Amino acid sequence: MSGAMQFKNCCSVLVTGANRGLGLQIVDSLASGGFSPGKIIATARNPESAQKLQEVAAKYPNIHIITLDVLSQESIEKCVEEVAKLLQDEGLNCLINNAGINVLADFNTVTADKMIENFHTNAVAPLMITKAFLPLLKKAASRGGAGGSRSMGIQRAAVINMSSLLGSVELNWGEKADTFKWYPYRISKSALNMVSRCMAVDLEHDGILCIVIHPGWVRTDMGGYEAPLSPEESISSILSVIGGLTEKDHGSFLDFTGEMLPW
Amino acid sequence: MSGAMQFKNCCSVLVTGANRGLGLQIVDSLASGGFSPGKIIATARNPESAQKLQEVAAKYPNIHIITLDVLSQESIEKCVEEVAKLLQDEGLNCLINNAGINVLADFNTVTADKMIENFHTNAVAPLMITKAFLPLLKKAASRGGAGGSRSMGIQRAAVINMSSLLGSVELNWGEKADTFKWYPYRISKSALNMVSRCMAVDLEHDGILCIVIHPGWVRTDMGGYEAPLSPEESISSILSVIGGLTEKDHGSFLDFTGEMLPW
Repeated sequence: MSGAMQFKNCCSVLVTGANRGLGLQIVDSLASGGFSPGKIIATARNPESAQKLQEVAAKYPNIHIITLDVLSQESIEKCVEEVAKLLQDEGLNCLINNAGINVLADFNTVTADKMIENFHTNAVAPLMITKAFLPLLKKAASRGGAGGSRSMGIQRAAVINMSSLLGSVELNWGEKADTFKWYPYRISKSALNMVSRCMAVDLEHDGILCIVIHPGWVRTDMGGYEAPLSPEESISSILSVIGGLTEKDHGSFLDFTGEMLPW
Repeated sequence: MSGAMQFKNCCSVLVTGANRGLGLQIVDSLASGGFSPGKIIATARNPESAQKLQEVAAKYPNIHIITLDVLSQESIEKCVEEVAKLLQDEGLNCLINNAGINVLADFNTVTADKMIENFHTNAVAPLMITKAFLPLLKKAASRGGAGGSRSMGIQRAAVINMSSLLGSVELNWGEKADTFKWYPYRISKSALNMVSRCMAVDLEHDGILCIVIHPGWVRTDMGGYEAPLSPEESISSILSVIGGLTEKDHGSFLDFTGEMLPW
């Protein structure tokens, strides 16, 4: 059941926004799975107040909590330094840019500030974080997978960006468009999709896989209590998808079941 | 030849970024065409220094130059006030969000500030400008076209956002992706595409058409001297496309020949 078994060849995973919601669930599912990565790095802006994350980390010695404010370049660089010390020559196999916010606003209430706030956290931060972790991702990719394999996947290096179906321009039409008229959120996720595609183009020659994934509609603080999926269900499925990624998925937009989505 | 003849049923057009490049060409082509709109409103941040625009405006009494700094909410609101006085009960038929910048940066040189600067001008400003002009667009749409027709198009009200092929996530792959690795620009245009799609959903019930258009690769300051199209060629074709827009085009991404592009 647990998608974490797919991570048996992945030595290290870093998850941003691990204090709650899907990020916390990724850390929990990876740590409690049968084949837990050697090092699970859980970042949060304020680890001291991330009570649940602290509780999970107390149970599993392979969880390492590191402070990261995704909006601060200084904080990003400090985080990279700490992670580099922790991982040493191994490099980082899997970077999951999960931290995200939903600055609620429709056409009438949207402002330039709301647009920029959501864009910075959801689209710009994953780009700046990936740039900063590039040396560690390259190190892992250059070591190759089992037996020095050059296939792409999390056994080498991968960047996973948590996007949303709501970031699909194509699907924002007809009946589907009549709900969730969230301008800052939708536009930030469309922007993240292009960020990922641009990075996929640039990271390919280093053997680093890059995709965006839609987690489904999940019962988290962001998804609300009416959502059909539990965090466990969504993340179990997502971890299976991430664990099975190969070259053919590079640069694509997948949902939590592995189906390809239109941009 | 001139696409401007398609504008015979359009009383008023507003073009942002009309001081140079494609914006200036739109104003010039509309004014010099056989069926020139009654009022062509050309906005620029600093009209005093827009020498060429002043020269064109001196030749045609239907060109009205108004100051607009697209990044300033105060300037946007002041511009709407002036345009409202000029148009009175007619309302605004066609808003062309043309002002845009290219903050050059690749994966190595991109910064959060560069991303936000380009996003603000190219994606957020068209949204804030459209919001501000909504009462004038609604007024024009509610009057209907010739004989009170309820068909969508520039004879009623339309918002045209100047995007780019480089904003297509789908097309940013393979050989095509090896050039123009412009992170801030590509991502701002993807974001603009989603802005347009969201607005198309919301403006439809007021009868206001909304599309994004790719102008081709044009010999302007931004396009460079190697580009295959002259501004006259691009804009002649674009004006034909805009003039012929109907319901079936609503919410779409077209190139300057009217072909549909993938998101």
